[in-house]
Amino acid sequence: MENSLPTPRARANVSYVLESVGHTLFEDRPVRPLTPHEVRVNVRQTGLCGSDCHYKTHGQIGDFVLRAPMVLGHESAGIITEVGSAVTNRKVGDRVALEPGVPCLACDECIGGTYNQCLALVFAATPPYDGTLATYYNIHASFAHPLPHSLSLEAGSLMEPLSVAVHATVARGQVRALENVLVFGAGPVGLLIAAVARAYGARRVVSVDLIDEKLAFAKSFCATSTFKPVLPAAGTFGMDNTRRNMEALVEREGLQREGGFDLVLDATGALSCLQMAAFAGRPRGRIVTVGMGNPVATLPLTHMLVKEMVMLGSFRYGAGDFEKSIALVSDGLINVERLVTHRYLFEDADKAFATTELGKGEDGRFAIKVQLCQGAAS
Amino acid sequence: MENSLPTPRARANVSYVLESVGHTLFEDRPVRPLTPHEVRVNVRQTGLCGSDCHYKTHGQIGDFVLRAPMVLGHESAGIITEVGSAVTNRKVGDRVALEPGVPCLACDECIGGTYNQCLALVFAATPPYDGTLATYYNIHASFAHPLPHSLSLEAGSLMEPLSVAVHATVARGQVRALENVLVFGAGPVGLLIAAVARAYGARRVVSVDLIDEKLAFAKSFCATSTFKPVLPAAGTFGMDNTRRNMEALVEREGLQREGGFDLVLDATGALSCLQMAAFAGRPRGRIVTVGMGNPVATLPLTHMLVKEMVMLGSFRYGAGDFEKSIALVSDGLINVERLVTHRYLFEDADKAFATTELGKGEDGRFAIKVQLCQGAAS
Amino acid sequence: MENSLPTPRARANVSYVLESVGHTLFEDRPVRPLTPHEVRVNVRQTGLCGSDCHYKTHGQIGDFVLRAPMVLGHESAGIITEVGSAVTNRKVGDRVALEPGVPCLACDECIGGTYNQCLALVFAATPPYDGTLATYYNIHASFAHPLPHSLSLEAGSLMEPLSVAVHATVARGQVRALENVLVFGAGPVGLLIAAVARAYGARRVVSVDLIDEKLAFAKSFCATSTFKPVLPAAGTFGMDNTRRNMEALVEREGLQREGGFDLVLDATGALSCLQMAAFAGRPRGRIVTVGMGNPVATLPLTHMLVKEMVMLGSFRYGAGDFEKSIALVSDGLINVERLVTHRYLFEDADKAFATTELGKGEDGRFAIKVQLCQGAAS
Amino acid sequence: MENSLPTPRARANVSYVLESVGHTLFEDRPVRPLTPHEVRVNVRQTGLCGSDCHYKTHGQIGDFVLRAPMVLGHESAGIITEVGSAVTNRKVGDRVALEPGVPCLACDECIGGTYNQCLALVFAATPPYDGTLATYYNIHASFAHPLPHSLSLEAGSLMEPLSVAVHATVARGQVRALENVLVFGAGPVGLLIAAVARAYGARRVVSVDLIDEKLAFAKSFCATSTFKPVLPAAGTFGMDNTRRNMEALVEREGLQREGGFDLVLDATGALSCLQMAAFAGRPRGRIVTVGMGNPVATLPLTHMLVKEMVMLGSFRYGAGDFEKSIALVSDGLINVERLVTHRYLFEDADKAFATTELGKGEDGRFAIKVQLCQGAAS
Repeated sequence: MENSLPTPRARANVSYVLESVGHTLFEDRPVRPLTPHEVRVNVRQTGLCGSDCHYKTHGQIGDFVLRAPMVLGHESAGIITEVGSAVTNRKVGDRVALEPGVPCLACDECIGGTYNQCLALVFAATPPYDGTLATYYNIHASFAHPLPHSLSLEAGSLMEPLSVAVHATVARGQVRALENVLVFGAGPVGLLIAAVARAYGARRVVSVDLIDEKLAFAKSFCATSTFKPVLPAAGTFGMDNTRRNMEALVEREGLQREGGFDLVLDATGALSCLQMAAFAGRPRGRIVTVGMGNPVATLPLTHMLVKEMVMLGSFRYGAGDFEKSIALVSDGLINVERLVTHRYLFEDADKAFATTELGKGEDGRFAIKVQLCQGAAS
Repeated sequence: MENSLPTPRARANVSYVLESVGHTLFEDRPVRPLTPHEVRVNVRQTGLCGSDCHYKTHGQIGDFVLRAPMVLGHESAGIITEVGSAVTNRKVGDRVALEPGVPCLACDECIGGTYNQCLALVFAATPPYDGTLATYYNIHASFAHPLPHSLSLEAGSLMEPLSVAVHATVARGQVRALENVLVFGAGPVGLLIAAVARAYGARRVVSVDLIDEKLAFAKSFCATSTFKPVLPAAGTFGMDNTRRNMEALVEREGLQREGGFDLVLDATGALSCLQMAAFAGRPRGRIVTVGMGNPVATLPLTHMLVKEMVMLGSFRYGAGDFEKSIALVSDGLINVERLVTHRYLFEDADKAFATTELGKGEDGRFAIKVQLCQGAAS
Repeated sequence: MENSLPTPRARANVSYVLESVGHTLFEDRPVRPLTPHEVRVNVRQTGLCGSDCHYKTHGQIGDFVLRAPMVLGHESAGIITEVGSAVTNRKVGDRVALEPGVPCLACDECIGGTYNQCLALVFAATPPYDGTLATYYNIHASFAHPLPHSLSLEAGSLMEPLSVAVHATVARGQVRALENVLVFGAGPVGLLIAAVARAYGARRVVSVDLIDEKLAFAKSFCATSTFKPVLPAAGTFGMDNTRRNMEALVEREGLQREGGFDLVLDATGALSCLQMAAFAGRPRGRIVTVGMGNPVATLPLTHMLVKEMVMLGSFRYGAGDFEKSIALVSDGLINVERLVTHRYLFEDADKAFATTELGKGEDGRFAIKVQLCQGAAS
Repeated sequence: MENSLPTPRARANVSYVLESVGHTLFEDRPVRPLTPHEVRVNVRQTGLCGSDCHYKTHGQIGDFVLRAPMVLGHESAGIITEVGSAVTNRKVGDRVALEPGVPCLACDECIGGTYNQCLALVFAATPPYDGTLATYYNIHASFAHPLPHSLSLEAGSLMEPLSVAVHATVARGQVRALENVLVFGAGPVGLLIAAVARAYGARRVVSVDLIDEKLAFAKSFCATSTFKPVLPAAGTFGMDNTRRNMEALVEREGLQREGGFDLVLDATGALSCLQMAAFAGRPRGRIVTVGMGNPVATLPLTHMLVKEMVMLGSFRYGAGDFEKSIALVSDGLINVERLVTHRYLFEDADKAFATTELGKGEDGRFAIKVQLCQGAAS
């Protein structure tokens, strides 16, 4: 049934629209004609992300401000129902994961293969561009990534956060087998980063978080061990405290000879984590920052200079990341659906957003990933 | 005369010793026998460095604390007077530049070619190790780098700061021809970094400083242009101010399409410079930190993440850096002696230190590099 | 006058067509309408290349076979006369160099930034695609590279062979300043490779050829020195002979300590040159093959294995290569017009081809680069 | 018992000496005093290698010629019985794998971290240097790699061939997870290369050989699939045949979209395999040559040029390779002892050599790796 095409009645394009801050509604929106390189996708599965909630609640992330109603959603998978006149590499019926940022394919960044830095990127559910929580979504064919039969559409919709993790860990972090990896944060992206590091053969993958429940999940999902930093009395972190925490961890993991971790990834954006990252890395170790938090951060720069550390930013995903994500799941290296704790029908989108925002469902259970199934709407 | 060997009378080993904080004296110290891989060098030229002055004044840099009298000096060149039993690649009479940090050559870092991270490194004039301001200095043969005839011993002694610049710009910064490079600081290391970038074919090399006199020198020595940041009324820098300064500079240099500089090097360690560096870099641009200042720094981390910048520490120098430095000067690409503003005889070492500390000589002239000629002492 | 747009009468699209092997004619061909991302270029300058002559004489290069009449020419520059509906980065009147291979911008190679490996690449004057020797040529806007005022259109048309050299030397060969570089072949591409290596700061650039006249030009144009291999009595090369020649060269250049050249580029495709390349490289040295000759070659493989050499193929050009070429000429680092030995009007295309084929003109002078000026035809 | 130190009586240094071509004997040789950085190892396990047999049979490999009696053996592990005066990182009783090539640690290659290219390398059982088939062997402490308890000394002695594989696959081949890897040869090194590729997360690892028995072992040990090339009638390989074989393989493995394998490693040195390697690689694919065979090879160079392939030599091993090998076995990723098909006591060394030379034992079983246990001799 998952693969059945929508019936004619389904040509209505039901969309979940953020009308204004805090105010959403379902709307039947016109379907835009395809350009030659686009395909039309009947969206079936969408995962919710913190950024969707943030727009709903605050109407703004950084410089991106909601100024007109906007369809939400950007972690989706579905089935191609129509292909543009110039499309040769996709066909009607293909099950695809959507890569929600489509670049211009004409600027220096795009032509040079670093399209996530394209200044003209059209990103789903980032103002002023509509998102994927609709019956149909038009997208450049090369950004609708075919799914092998072994992947469900639900798994397909999770290729987006997994690609964030692949980009950070592989493209930017250049993880190699036998390396020792430290990951700050055990939310969806942190968990997926740890899982990617493991799948790439990392020797140790230590997940760091302050919440026991998350650490327990990390241990069962991806981490070879976990670490909960010791908070000082006042509950705040100072530079000395972060240093002590990391020295204890490096010793616990037996990494004194190496001088620390080869690769540290921060999926939190929290100041204390970034500082810990700097103290946890080995000489010439790499620190990848992928979690956005406080726009500024105070770092132990002389320490990083003397150890000749490398700190790299990681933003979204780029060439090859979706293909790698699909391969990782298809090869059984990452069981991405284990992250889905809550599933809702499309018509219950408001409930799904509430669960995501609260971090737990009406059932009282801890939420990691919340999914919307749009299949019923078609 | 520069090349003549010391006469027998000269076998006295006159050394400039920091007895205790603020207190120096000349002392005839015993000469240590050579180990099999060492050579003995009759030191002839030594440049003074901020760190020498810092030990003299404060007795401490970071964790390195003066606990016993220590010979000062670590930027030296001289003539080999004796070679150890196992030395095959150097001979008596060779004119050499000293690389003052000799690693253990047995640990993982050394065997792997990243010996500047060797934890057992013996560094001249870093407690507890004696420096090179003496008639004789014993050093592992491979760290006494032969000078071609075209280089004077004075130029040879400047291979040490030049190697700091080569390491930052080439080994860490990976500068390539046609790149646009921004350098914070127009002191000796900042000037040499800019000169190396030029010699490697950088298209634009912009030197940044707050002092007009330094910028004028930079323009005549190495920079294609210079930049003096605009200070806000209060004379302090805020993040918005640093950003505005860099946006103005990027526009002035016509780098809007590129989005900023390919490579930014900071030779100041100053907070405002590090922040400017972050705003001046292009997407995926590299920032190399080489100047030590405040041990911590507050950076615009989200900006760096979204632009996927890379920040790398650079510490001292490593394999091949001295060879490159010697080649750059020998090929006429960098006229390193132009940096020497003041020259003193060894016996006037106190005056030379005073000039270095003050930043200008008794002659009232601005000091860049201050040299001590030990030739007369031998 | 060079920059004046064609008059209305000039809308005729005079094209130089290879009807069948050995048979060319001028024809007024219809002008194809622009697609949204294309610009129309009034071609003014075209350099002739060996491959143009080869198609004219043999009708085939490798798997590419002339099966229908085809316009010749692919090294061109001109002026934009019309822009497609989606073009935002070019405008009418822009002087541009044409990058004659336009990829699909939709496959994995294109999206990943390695578009010269795109299997759907449309390359001018490669069957079945028409070339640029016509009044008008339509091309994707991003492949019409704007020329600064300092570059003539003649220089602009030479950006194509220069980009072949930049790709080989910089993108594939990763040349760095102070390296020692050896280049086989002193034809147009070999000369440009040597010039690029020099512009990138190579310390030694040795050009190798068998013809004294070419070596003399190389010396005056780009090489720090030249080398003419010693042929054995029989005039043939054996492996021992190639080795002896290279050992003599390495010694002559004083590279015994390094063990050979850092980077060797072959622009000949000749068996003896490829063998010499293998013996000339230092341990871990790079050999770049860019000249096509005999499809197979016998190499000293054990020697290359033991020295851990790296051999890389270089094919055409890719992202950033035209930009670098334009910058090199615009910055005065390469005087590309010195290569042009013969210039013809478009109507004398047959004579120009004859000069290219013979390797010398009616004037008896040695030909390096032969140019066709289409300005008069418009 | 394996870990017990030799009894006093055992201080005899029984050595297996190649007196002259084809003539071996046991001899009690004097024990050389330790230099400051050496340790003395009581050798317990030694694997035999084709090169040991080759010296025994032919007295020569390439330029290395037996001119005086030489102890054989270079794949060994044992127990430290004494440490030199300057050794701080090893102690008596440490169980160690021997890295049989010790470089000078003073030349540019050594200091730069590429010590396998050191021209002064002392390699065990390579004329004129004695090998490890003796009761005691002195070696620089840093080249005696400590074994964790989980590794037997037999496994320890296999760290040498495993390091050849790690160097080829990881250091030179830069294998990454999810890549498709093709390995020519299913002898010990080819098998270990395939095993390393798997351990590093390669998606497909295809072993190629002509012998069914070897392919069956490869399938059970390391390969995801195997391939036996189709020989043409005459039993010889031509370039067209090699191409057809590889096109069939690429299609069988479903790699048409990628255009071939990401990484191809040749452990045979056979001409036909090297040619197949060239046709099997994807655009920009890497080919690593590690097996030595015919000193010259004829390759499809234009094909490699157009596909921009990279061919890299791999020689022995370098920094970090033994550490990685030990980690791979210790982490259970490679069961290296499965390669050992035949085990002999030291006194039966002649039989062990005979088994290695024949490729099968007196038991009629196919030989992969033949081990000598020196424990009994001590």
